[in-house]
Amino acid sequence: MDLQLPKSEYPRVVIVGGGFGGIELAKRLKNKPFQVVMLDKHNYHTFQPLLYQVATGGLEADSIAFPLRKIFKGQKNIVFRVTKVTSVNASENCLITDIGKVSYDYLVIATGSTSNFFGNKEIEANSMPMKSIPEALDLRSLILQNFEKSLIEKDLNKRDALLNFVVVGGGPTGVETAGAIAELKKHVIPNDYPEMDLSRINIYLIENSPELLGPMSPQAQKKSKEFLIEMGVQVMNETRVLGYDGNTLLLQDKAPILTSTVIWSAGVKGEVLPGLDQAEIVRGGRLKTDTQNLVVGYKNVYAIGDVAAIITDDTPNGHPGVAPVAIQQGHQLAKNLVHIAENKPLEPFKYFDKGSMATVGRNRAVVDIGKIHFQGIFAWFAWMFVHLMTLVGFRNKIIVFINWVWSYFSYDRGTRLIIRTFAKDRSVDYRAEVPSVKENVKAS
Amino acid sequence: MDLQLPKSEYPRVVIVGGGFGGIELAKRLKNKPFQVVMLDKHNYHTFQPLLYQVATGGLEADSIAFPLRKIFKGQKNIVFRVTKVTSVNASENCLITDIGKVSYDYLVIATGSTSNFFGNKEIEANSMPMKSIPEALDLRSLILQNFEKSLIEKDLNKRDALLNFVVVGGGPTGVETAGAIAELKKHVIPNDYPEMDLSRINIYLIENSPELLGPMSPQAQKKSKEFLIEMGVQVMNETRVLGYDGNTLLLQDKAPILTSTVIWSAGVKGEVLPGLDQAEIVRGGRLKTDTQNLVVGYKNVYAIGDVAAIITDDTPNGHPGVAPVAIQQGHQLAKNLVHIAENKPLEPFKYFDKGSMATVGRNRAVVDIGKIHFQGIFAWFAWMFVHLMTLVGFRNKIIVFINWVWSYFSYDRGTRLIIRTFAKDRSVDYRAEVPSVKENVKAS
Repeated sequence: MDLQLPKSEYPRVVIVGGGFGGIELAKRLKNKPFQVVMLDKHNYHTFQPLLYQVATGGLEADSIAFPLRKIFKGQKNIVFRVTKVTSVNASENCLITDIGKVSYDYLVIATGSTSNFFGNKEIEANSMPMKSIPEALDLRSLILQNFEKSLIEKDLNKRDALLNFVVVGGGPTGVETAGAIAELKKHVIPNDYPEMDLSRINIYLIENSPELLGPMSPQAQKKSKEFLIEMGVQVMNETRVLGYDGNTLLLQDKAPILTSTVIWSAGVKGEVLPGLDQAEIVRGGRLKTDTQNLVVGYKNVYAIGDVAAIITDDTPNGHPGVAPVAIQQGHQLAKNLVHIAENKPLEPFKYFDKGSMATVGRNRAVVDIGKIHFQGIFAWFAWMFVHLMTLVGFRNKIIVFINWVWSYFSYDRGTRLIIRTFAKDRSVDYRAEVPSVKENVKAS
Repeated sequence: MDLQLPKSEYPRVVIVGGGFGGIELAKRLKNKPFQVVMLDKHNYHTFQPLLYQVATGGLEADSIAFPLRKIFKGQKNIVFRVTKVTSVNASENCLITDIGKVSYDYLVIATGSTSNFFGNKEIEANSMPMKSIPEALDLRSLILQNFEKSLIEKDLNKRDALLNFVVVGGGPTGVETAGAIAELKKHVIPNDYPEMDLSRINIYLIENSPELLGPMSPQAQKKSKEFLIEMGVQVMNETRVLGYDGNTLLLQDKAPILTSTVIWSAGVKGEVLPGLDQAEIVRGGRLKTDTQNLVVGYKNVYAIGDVAAIITDDTPNGHPGVAPVAIQQGHQLAKNLVHIAENKPLEPFKYFDKGSMATVGRNRAVVDIGKIHFQGIFAWFAWMFVHLMTLVGFRNKIIVFINWVWSYFSYDRGTRLIIRTFAKDRSVDYRAEVPSVKENVKAS
């Protein structure tokens, strides 16, 4: 069954994924001689850098997401469909999706990345990833439910486990999440749970390597660690996680940690589509491409963003998996596709690194811009400004801005609702509102 | 197993339900000689009058809900627990909950109401209620998914069904929901779905009785119907629904309607707790109480709000199931409990009716205040003002206000994300991202 799509006289570019790279490419192809088809499993674009604030009650999910159809409002040469692409049939130039086949003249894989558990199924089953809005909402529910559970738990070991929060992975996501939980502990829990013994709440940040924020400057690495320690986070560098059964986190050469909450931000891998048998998959599960983002082994299949790796002598592991790379690759690929249509020579991708930043808590952030490094309150304002400006949608910018101003003055995080009741198999003591089978169909 | 609660020298008032009545009562008992225990299955209070705006993409869920713990911040004599009460054991003065037994000296049932399907199991299984945040989010997902599905559906009957939206029940919720869907059709769909034939989208409002907004003035009834018809809603009064199998809505003496979406707002019934065997349950599934909200048949069990009916000659069916009644009953009961503690005579509940209002769409609302009736733009501003003022939480007021201002000038509804993938059994063609078993555990 073929997917019904409007007819077009122009060649068809199918973009899989409405992340930063996919939407940049699609928008740049406006009024160009292509029919653009975008496919995404969600009907919205997710602003991933702020997912951790959704997970910790700082922002509404709706304010960091944006309907994809609205992004392309007024763009006549684009068709959008909500669907999951199951595989690529490159020899027939078509995609298999769960709503039918889609043929393409040019295919662009912009599927991004997913959590990398490095093959450890036990950790995958029991820890919490944070790469999508549903995952962030699940994590928010779990954190809040664990505080509620701890009030009724009589077994002291179990109670400790409920109040031990472990973040694995000291990259920007891990640092930001650990900092946000520390702020929940400091500013929200004392008001919400006057009966709770705050000293029992522990926040751990575990990182394999000797430093946090690996790719950033030594100054940023050092200062972010200082900030976290000031805020009460127990930072454990050079610590390797061996396993997690849902109750006990096993560490190499160190004492295990009893915990009900392990947040996994230790790595990502490319979301490669099945069927690209000629492609070479390199480190981080990414598709090897040439400098024009053409997947090596194919003539009309491109990859951009987190899922792509332009392997050159300068970039032996590809570019970093961050939004600016995806956006710039989408932009460059749009130019190159137009060049193809106009029979002009193609240009290689060149990354313009604007710098990197991470926030730890209120008034505490670290920023590297080229050789300039600064930390503290000014870095924090810079971080907020850049994130507000990058956020898609004017309404979202206003809502996020107001939430931040509100939190700044009230020391509060406004959105603390357990909307998605979260139940793991190992949850035995807390049975409030586990949906029945019928409710499950309706409410899931 | 008893629920561990802090010890107190004062008698214990257990309030079941953190709706308008429950929170008013609990707040009024601040610094009074009682230990107040509030139990709710959610950790948040829901502002039910605006649920329909969540369901139609106008507002974020988080902006019409408020964490219950935060409402009671600084109130020392209250304990809150998230739990579901399963039954009352009145002879032993205790409640059975899914986290243990809770004994009480005074019990206040403030559980509110739930959708009333009048015993029709088929309609209950296939139509969408809208009484809670999860239900409103499910409805939002269903509406948006149906638009997406209609683009890929080849069977014309099924395509029509996906674009026929039926609201059953012409009370305020039904009128407001039908109007909101009409605005989605008029202002959002043409931008989001330029390929869609708008004339195929139909919105029906079905009401058993000859008028809409039963308890309001004839002027309000007439004008709200005119507004809806102007906005393109097909209003069907004196129409009785016989059944709905998920595809076809059967009507008495009228042609059936093919539809994938039936929103049920035709009635509510009290959420009575099992075990109150001495109580008399009157029309609407409510507990009969005396004028002091004492449940008839008991000495220390009270009921307030939607679940209660003060039956007198003046109020043969009790008071209307609206927020002001619940709030005023909570207030009066707090006074009477203090009177009991002080050995003073009790006062009967007297309802002060401030009037009623409903909104149909932008610039279109109806208001009755005593003998004053007005409709149109001024009524609409009055409606917005009253709802903003009643909403719990300053942050929520700001966020809702900004969303409304934004929608007013942009003609847009900002929160159109399918966050909870909604799948009914009858959904056969649309399989995008139906979670696997493991994902289901994580994501439901």
